[in-house]
Amino acid sequence: MVVLGSTGSIGKNTLLIAKQFNLSVEALSCNKNIELLNAQIAEFKPKFVCVGSKNLKSKVKGDVKVFAGEDGILNMLENSKSQKVINALVGFAGLKPSIKTQKLNKTLCLANKESLVVGGKFLKTSEICAIDSEHFGLKFLLKDSPDISKLIITASGGAFRDATLNDLKTATPKDALKHPNWDMGAKITIDSATMANKLFEVLEAYWLYGLKSVDAVIERSSTIHALIEFVDGSTTAHISKTDMKLAIAHAIMPNLNSQILSHFDLLSLPPLKFEEICPKKYPIFSLKDEVLKNPSLGVIINAANEIYVAKFLAKECEFLALKSMVLKALDKFCGENLGSLESVLEVDRKVRQFVSKIKL
Amino acid sequence: MVVLGSTGSIGKNTLLIAKQFNLSVEALSCNKNIELLNAQIAEFKPKFVCVGSKNLKSKVKGDVKVFAGEDGILNMLENSKSQKVINALVGFAGLKPSIKTQKLNKTLCLANKESLVVGGKFLKTSEICAIDSEHFGLKFLLKDSPDISKLIITASGGAFRDATLNDLKTATPKDALKHPNWDMGAKITIDSATMANKLFEVLEAYWLYGLKSVDAVIERSSTIHALIEFVDGSTTAHISKTDMKLAIAHAIMPNLNSQILSHFDLLSLPPLKFEEICPKKYPIFSLKDEVLKNPSLGVIINAANEIYVAKFLAKECEFLALKSMVLKALDKFCGENLGSLESVLEVDRKVRQFVSKIKL
Repeated sequence: MVVLGSTGSIGKNTLLIAKQFNLSVEALSCNKNIELLNAQIAEFKPKFVCVGSKNLKSKVKGDVKVFAGEDGILNMLENSKSQKVINALVGFAGLKPSIKTQKLNKTLCLANKESLVVGGKFLKTSEICAIDSEHFGLKFLLKDSPDISKLIITASGGAFRDATLNDLKTATPKDALKHPNWDMGAKITIDSATMANKLFEVLEAYWLYGLKSVDAVIERSSTIHALIEFVDGSTTAHISKTDMKLAIAHAIMPNLNSQILSHFDLLSLPPLKFEEICPKKYPIFSLKDEVLKNPSLGVIINAANEIYVAKFLAKECEFLALKSMVLKALDKFCGENLGSLESVLEVDRKVRQFVSKIKL
Repeated sequence: MVVLGSTGSIGKNTLLIAKQFNLSVEALSCNKNIELLNAQIAEFKPKFVCVGSKNLKSKVKGDVKVFAGEDGILNMLENSKSQKVINALVGFAGLKPSIKTQKLNKTLCLANKESLVVGGKFLKTSEICAIDSEHFGLKFLLKDSPDISKLIITASGGAFRDATLNDLKTATPKDALKHPNWDMGAKITIDSATMANKLFEVLEAYWLYGLKSVDAVIERSSTIHALIEFVDGSTTAHISKTDMKLAIAHAIMPNLNSQILSHFDLLSLPPLKFEEICPKKYPIFSLKDEVLKNPSLGVIINAANEIYVAKFLAKECEFLALKSMVLKALDKFCGENLGSLESVLEVDRKVRQFVSKIKL
C-alpha cells in the first residue's frame, strides 16, 4: 500500500496495522518529520518516499527513490503498483492525491476529509473506504435494514466543551490543542475545538452515503461514534474504543474478521449523554444546513478555515474569529462557478488570498 | 394471521398493527377476558376463537366458531389457513402451540419465550420471528459483519431495582407488579422483578441465534435493548422507544419499511448507564452460566418459576423464595432424561407437583 502522511497520527496507526497483519508498504510520504520517516523506511523498506520539499531530500536515508513536494506525491502515485492508497494528508493538499488515486484505479482509503469537503463531486464517493471513526461507524451500521431517515455522528465537544463564552474570547492555541479524548494533529485538534471538524464530517457523510439528512450531537466520552435512524423507529449505534486502528484496518482490509481493539467493559463506561452542539459556543456549526443545501460551498469554508487555523496558531487572530472570516469569504465568493476542478482550485487560491488580508 | 393470547399486552399491540396495516385476522385466543375478546371479534371478524375453558364458550358473541382449552388451541391451529401465528401465550402453555405451528409449516412469531426456555431443541429456532424487544434488537443488528463474540441484552432492573435486600425480604405482589418501564402482564412483570425473565431471555437468545456467549446488563431507561460485540472490537447497539409494536411489526411483516414508532429525541434522553445484575438482589440470574452449559434444564427452572409466581401472587411465599425453590427442583430432577418432548412434558408435571409441596 501507499501511506500518504505516514508520520502523522493516522499514518503511524496505519503502519501499526501493516505490521500486525504483515501488509507490504510500497510508498510513504511525510511533510518534514524526516527522522521518523527514516525509522519507517528502515522498518518497512518502501520503494518510494516523498518529502515536503526538495531541500529535505538529502536527509532521507535508505535504499529508496525520493520524491518531493505536491507534484512529487502525484508522481509517486503514478510510479506505485499498490492497489490501496491511504490518504492521511492534512487539509486541502489532500484533494489532488485523492483524485489521482482514483484516476489510477487504486482504492482510496481516506482520512483526509477535506478531499470530500472541497471536492466531493470530483470523487467516486461510493468507492471510498472512509477512515474517520464516525464514518466507519456509519458504514458498519449501513446494512440491508429498513430505509434510513437520518445519519447522526457524534462529537466529543473538543477542547472547549466546558469553557464559557468568555473563556473562548481569550482562548490561546495552547488551550485549544488540548483535546479531551483523541490524540491527533494540530489542525484537526483546532478544528475539533471550533467544531469546523464536525461541520466537515457532516458534509463528508453526505458525500460518502448520499443522504442530506445528517446531524451531529455531542457525546463527551467518544464511546458512541455514530447512530443511524431508520424509518421504522429503530436507531442503531456504533460503539468502540477511541482508537483509529479499527477504522483503518477495515478500510485497508475489506471483510476484516480479526481482533483490532478490545471491547469496553460496559459496566465501567461513564454515563452516555447526548448534548446539543450549542450555536453560541460553536458558531461555525450553524452553517450546517446551508452547506448541506449547497455542498459546493465546502471549498470556500475549507480555505477560510485553513487560513484561520494558521493565523490562530500564529496568534494572529482570536479563537472566535473563524465564523466572521468564513462568512466574509462566503459573502464574496458564493456566486463563483464551482463546477469544475479547475474552478475549485482557483477559488481555493482566491479565498486564501482574500482571507489572509482580512483586517481583524 | 392467528393471534394466541389476543387480550394480553402483546396481543393487543399485535391487533393495533393489524389494523394499521390492514392485515386480516383469522383466529384469536384468550384465557378468560371474554369482554375484550368480544370487542376484538366485532372489530376483526375472525373465523375462529378459542377461550380458556368450555364453560366460557357460551359468553362468546359473534359469527365465529369457538374452541376451548389447550387442545382447542391446537385444533384451531389445524383448522386455520393463516401462514403466520403470533404466540403471545403465558408460560409453559405456549410450548405445544409453538410446536404445532411449525409442524403445520406456519411461521411462528414468538412472544412466548417459555417455548424456547423449555423446548428450544424441539423447535426450528432459525425459522422463528422473535417478538421480544431485546431479541428483535439482536436480529436487527445481526447482519453480515465480522464474527460475533458476544450477544448482550439489557434489563431495566424491574420493580425492585432501587430496593435494598431488606426491602426484598418483605416485598408484596403489589410492589412487584410496578414495572418501571414496560406495561405488561402479571407473570412477566414478576419475572422482571426477580430477573427470571432475563435468565429466560439469555436462553432464548442462545436458541434463536446459536451463541453461548450471551450476557445481560441493566440499562435502566430501556433505551438500548441489545448490543452485539464483534471480534474486531466493534460493538453495536439497538435503540428504540419501549413499545412492543416495533418488534411485532417486524415479526409479522418481513422487510418492513414503514414507520412504526417515532424516534427518541437524543438530546432529551437520560444518561445511559450499564449496571451489573447484582447476584445478591437477583439470585436466580446467577444460574445463567449453568443453564447455558445445559440448556435442557430450562424446563425445570421454568416449571419451578411458574409455581413460584403463582404462590407469590397468592401470598403463599416470600419474594426471595424463588432461588431456593428452583435449586431444590434442579437438585431433584437434573438427572432426568430430557431428550424427548414427552419426557419434557412429564418432567414439567413432576417439577410442578414437587415444588407445590415444598414447605417454605
